[in-house]
Amino acid sequence: MTHTPVSGGVCAPQGFLAAGIHCGIRKNKSKRDLALIVSERPAATAAVYTRNKVQGAPIAVTRRHLADGFSRAVLCNSGNANTCNADGEYIAQTCCALTAQALGVQPEDIVIASTGVIGQPLPLEPFENGIPAAVAALSRDGGADAAEAVMTTDTRPKSHALSFDVNGVHCRIGIITKGSGMINPNMATMLTFITTDIAISPELLQRALSETVNNTLNQINIDGDTSTNDMAVIQANGMAGNPEIRDENSPAYAAFCAALHAACVWASREIAADGEGATKLLECTVRSARSSEVARAVAKSIISSDLLKAAMFGEDANWGRVLCAIGYTEGDFAADKVSLVLASEHGSVKVCEQSAYHPFSEDEAAKILSAKEIAINVEMHDGEACAQAWGCDLSYDYVKINGDYRS
Amino acid sequence: MTHTPVSGGVCAPQGFLAAGIHCGIRKNKSKRDLALIVSERPAATAAVYTRNKVQGAPIAVTRRHLADGFSRAVLCNSGNANTCNADGEYIAQTCCALTAQALGVQPEDIVIASTGVIGQPLPLEPFENGIPAAVAALSRDGGADAAEAVMTTDTRPKSHALSFDVNGVHCRIGIITKGSGMINPNMATMLTFITTDIAISPELLQRALSETVNNTLNQINIDGDTSTNDMAVIQANGMAGNPEIRDENSPAYAAFCAALHAACVWASREIAADGEGATKLLECTVRSARSSEVARAVAKSIISSDLLKAAMFGEDANWGRVLCAIGYTEGDFAADKVSLVLASEHGSVKVCEQSAYHPFSEDEAAKILSAKEIAINVEMHDGEACAQAWGCDLSYDYVKINGDYRS
Repeated sequence: MTHTPVSGGVCAPQGFLAAGIHCGIRKNKSKRDLALIVSERPAATAAVYTRNKVQGAPIAVTRRHLADGFSRAVLCNSGNANTCNADGEYIAQTCCALTAQALGVQPEDIVIASTGVIGQPLPLEPFENGIPAAVAALSRDGGADAAEAVMTTDTRPKSHALSFDVNGVHCRIGIITKGSGMINPNMATMLTFITTDIAISPELLQRALSETVNNTLNQINIDGDTSTNDMAVIQANGMAGNPEIRDENSPAYAAFCAALHAACVWASREIAADGEGATKLLECTVRSARSSEVARAVAKSIISSDLLKAAMFGEDANWGRVLCAIGYTEGDFAADKVSLVLASEHGSVKVCEQSAYHPFSEDEAAKILSAKEIAINVEMHDGEACAQAWGCDLSYDYVKINGDYRS
Repeated sequence: MTHTPVSGGVCAPQGFLAAGIHCGIRKNKSKRDLALIVSERPAATAAVYTRNKVQGAPIAVTRRHLADGFSRAVLCNSGNANTCNADGEYIAQTCCALTAQALGVQPEDIVIASTGVIGQPLPLEPFENGIPAAVAALSRDGGADAAEAVMTTDTRPKSHALSFDVNGVHCRIGIITKGSGMINPNMATMLTFITTDIAISPELLQRALSETVNNTLNQINIDGDTSTNDMAVIQANGMAGNPEIRDENSPAYAAFCAALHAACVWASREIAADGEGATKLLECTVRSARSSEVARAVAKSIISSDLLKAAMFGEDANWGRVLCAIGYTEGDFAADKVSLVLASEHGSVKVCEQSAYHPFSEDEAAKILSAKEIAINVEMHDGEACAQAWGCDLSYDYVKINGDYRS
């Protein structure tokens, strides 16, 4: 199965328009703060949400609106999470009503999301002019602007698209994501909006999204903090013209899942590489684990260790911290046969075998760790399952960004 | 029940001697690296250990030696954790044999512990001369030296003692602890050695230690990394002369538990305040929770949040991060009635009520957060249980210390 990168982001699939504008939620007028993604036709829509017990008002509203499995548009603001606000649901509902009115659809057709500071009242005024302005700005070229408008402390917009074939029909997936801090997704990453023109039933779309997020976006960790507003949404409008996918055992479903996995791995790597203060992307691959659950848990435990993250910032091959993180992972598995290889574009070095020191050159290891992308490859020798996880190093700038966030 | 601070550390209780010397495990000759604590008589001894699946060799050896519930001495080196070493158990056993020989006791009477870097071979040579030297240095004044000898990145030794009465008999507890980094104890803190001259059965001693550690040392978090070598040990030699405590419902047992709790709260605060890079001690108290388990979990989740820790470093009353951390705590409880007060020697301010913003002065909050010790007081309004947890802020120096640890 080949996936070819294409341009256009969330507008790469047929029948999607997008816009990203400044409406006044953020004080800095040069920063876009309102994104809108619209499908020309009703789109089967699936979503996964944060598992945090404290959830943003937009999540409650979106859950209700997606009860029927279909949507037309996604509205997302940055600069304010609309969470822990007494009137949060009223604000979120009113924004959906304004968007529906401007698009000539129903309020229940709108997916709403917010990201930014928690517990600050979110005024309606910016939306009253902003939503009509965003609708007026909708275009096939709006993907990049929409990607910008969902950013918070992200240092760059994250927009991508790829094409793939299903039953000889050319299909596309587009994706926008944002991350940066408060990232330990549990049921989604910070915010990820995916579009596709494939035809698929809402039930299989949900299944594909849930399984893919489990293996990709939920395997990112920046700082261990699961946000109140995490959400990943996929809209599938069927405009590619393939026969609707309804069979989970069909090659067409497998082809779609592979493309969705590729898109979400791309997003996971982008989010981790742009983690707050990050100077390096860490990609951990765990092989020969007892089960997929163990493989996922071990990989995530490793890339979540503050001690390892700080060592990676210092380019120090302190492999004991990897063994320590494997050891405190929950679950029933053997931790006494582990081998560990550190790798990058500068080479690879085995630093541990049978869970004990394996002689290596510190100079060679330091050279490998000087790269911008580090692979941490673990063999458990305890089974056949594998999984990946993505993280970043812990730098002075993480502290700076989060100690002085609101100024 | 009154507990009066007394001098002498682990030598404050009757019948205990201690020493701390430099034996050559650490390169810097001005740093003590070998601690020895000896009871004149066999002491009932209880211990709790790390829950990490990767465990240091000293832990395996100590478990075997404490199978009978008694010990005579504790030997602890710093500078090398003797973990993930192929010959680790042989080294640990040989050190016990050397100590036993020098003291004229059995190897099974020795508790052994190590702390420092993981996965570096630990040579025997420093112990061969060091153990006899430590035995020669044993004295009633050696508590302070022993406390120094267990330090790694700790900035100060941590030694304390208090007296209390049981059945009209004057008893004492002494304690040495070390912490600093890789601290998210699960079954103990990094290393804590407690002595007491009370007479108590080994079974009740174990019960008292386990329960107390659950509410104190296990409620500390510096960086979420549970060490491979965590251990808390208590030796009770009975030399105070009280009738041996054998009844868990007796006032004597309650008095002992209260004193042990006080000693371990002291240790928890010391460890948290001296967390790697810490500039502030955070003490979180959760009240009116549904259960003790929920109260403990919520308190620990709050003080474990990197985002909150960075905000505390920045002296920013970002209470949304507290709500977020409450929300992602595992367990079944209500998170929608939370009120939150931040307090210090400079005053207190309510920042959240009914899980939503409560108006407060940012200036007043900043003044309160400028103190060296911050209280985070949470009311869940969901039950009657309470618990505490201790942590520290996340500073540039945490990154510096852990990115450049081995130089």
